[in-house]
Amino acid sequence: MIKIAIIGNGNVGSTLNKAFSKAKNVQLVGVINSRLDSFEIGQVRNTKKESLSVADSPDLYILAVSDDAIVEVSKKLKGTKSLVVHTSGSVAMKEMPVARKGVLYPLQTFSKESLLDLRNVPLCIETEKEEDFKILQDLATALSKEVYKISSKQRAKLHLAAVFVNNFVNHMYKIGSDICLNNDLSFSMLKPLISETAKKVEHLSPETAQTGPARRADTGTIEKHLDLLSDTAHKEIYSLMTRSIQKTYEKEL
Amino acid sequence: MIKIAIIGNGNVGSTLNKAFSKAKNVQLVGVINSRLDSFEIGQVRNTKKESLSVADSPDLYILAVSDDAIVEVSKKLKGTKSLVVHTSGSVAMKEMPVARKGVLYPLQTFSKESLLDLRNVPLCIETEKEEDFKILQDLATALSKEVYKISSKQRAKLHLAAVFVNNFVNHMYKIGSDICLNNDLSFSMLKPLISETAKKVEHLSPETAQTGPARRADTGTIEKHLDLLSDTAHKEIYSLMTRSIQKTYEKEL
Repeated sequence: MIKIAIIGNGNVGSTLNKAFSKAKNVQLVGVINSRLDSFEIGQVRNTKKESLSVADSPDLYILAVSDDAIVEVSKKLKGTKSLVVHTSGSVAMKEMPVARKGVLYPLQTFSKESLLDLRNVPLCIETEKEEDFKILQDLATALSKEVYKISSKQRAKLHLAAVFVNNFVNHMYKIGSDICLNNDLSFSMLKPLISETAKKVEHLSPETAQTGPARRADTGTIEKHLDLLSDTAHKEIYSLMTRSIQKTYEKEL
Repeated sequence: MIKIAIIGNGNVGSTLNKAFSKAKNVQLVGVINSRLDSFEIGQVRNTKKESLSVADSPDLYILAVSDDAIVEVSKKLKGTKSLVVHTSGSVAMKEMPVARKGVLYPLQTFSKESLLDLRNVPLCIETEKEEDFKILQDLATALSKEVYKISSKQRAKLHLAAVFVNNFVNHMYKIGSDICLNNDLSFSMLKPLISETAKKVEHLSPETAQTGPARRADTGTIEKHLDLLSDTAHKEIYSLMTRSIQKTYEKEL
């Protein structure tokens, strides 16, 4: 039985909380919901809202707090003998000033409104000490089928890739939505296309799946599209993405 | 019963062919598989590979050919009394030199490997003559639950929006895939995130769904990411998308 305490009740904290309550061999002994500036170890409370006793002392603290708060919160755990892991894609493990440290990074986008099942979410794990790795691995395996040993360096790259396929993709949806709204068209019309575009790369590589005027160097359509765009930022994005796609496929044309 | 003939057996042609074979009140009298340069009306063949007789003459020709070929192929149908519709997002209806013209634009990405069910695909329809509209509407309604009357002007905007949410999104997947491959990471790790990012905008607006360092103006992470990017094109895309996201949300920060 692994005893854990979660610090933070944002999107990641809430999702982990739900997942742990279902997992075997994991006991959630504490959830810290308090504001970070009033957080102290003594205030860790167990899930029954009683004070955390020494016997309940977690094997593992999970810091599900914002990137900026990781160092500050881990400072407050400086004296602990427990393993402390954060859940961020972009903060290096070594930044936490604790004796036993690690990372449990779920490679997914979370929202509080619809708590995701973690079973199919890739969990990227890393510990500083080799003897701590098994603890974290056991915990991660209890939550997800997809557990990967990933270094801080690789994790930074994964997080960067995630910005492209999640944050930037969502901004493309936003631009599509703006174009619809400005032309009396419902954004809902684009939803089957959005869904199919994502599904396609489940079985095709993105390189093979690419279509469109830039891919086939259809300069007539590209020029028409640039004329239709009145928003300067959208026009710039159109040009740059088109150039980048053309560069990717220029050898075949 | 509407009699139709499909010209072209690419992704759209094949998908329509499959859909028509299941649709009620629609009879597929001909599919032209021949190369465009050898195409003549006389060579239209019915699905039993017999010559098309006058009695079989279609009510409707569907041009499922590449954008560049639409004008040329429709020239060869100049004399026909049937309605001729193309299936392109970006070609204006009026470009076809036929007496009765229209457009049946399926707003979706198609591939021959996995023929899609058209039931949930938005079909955007338009005819020049009002009396032809009902024919096309009946046909479209036999194929899909989502039928929209869309003008050539709106269709051009929809197609432009589709380039952002399909072609440019897929290129973002390609960049994510490149970052993975260059760092000994499997692109498969990103697939649950790609799928969830698309799912999120089914119930949230893209504006609300936006997350990430640009959205929260986390300059530390943005700078780290720019340092990690060695490919100049990827760096440019990162900067431009980040600026555009920041501009979108600057009022709230």
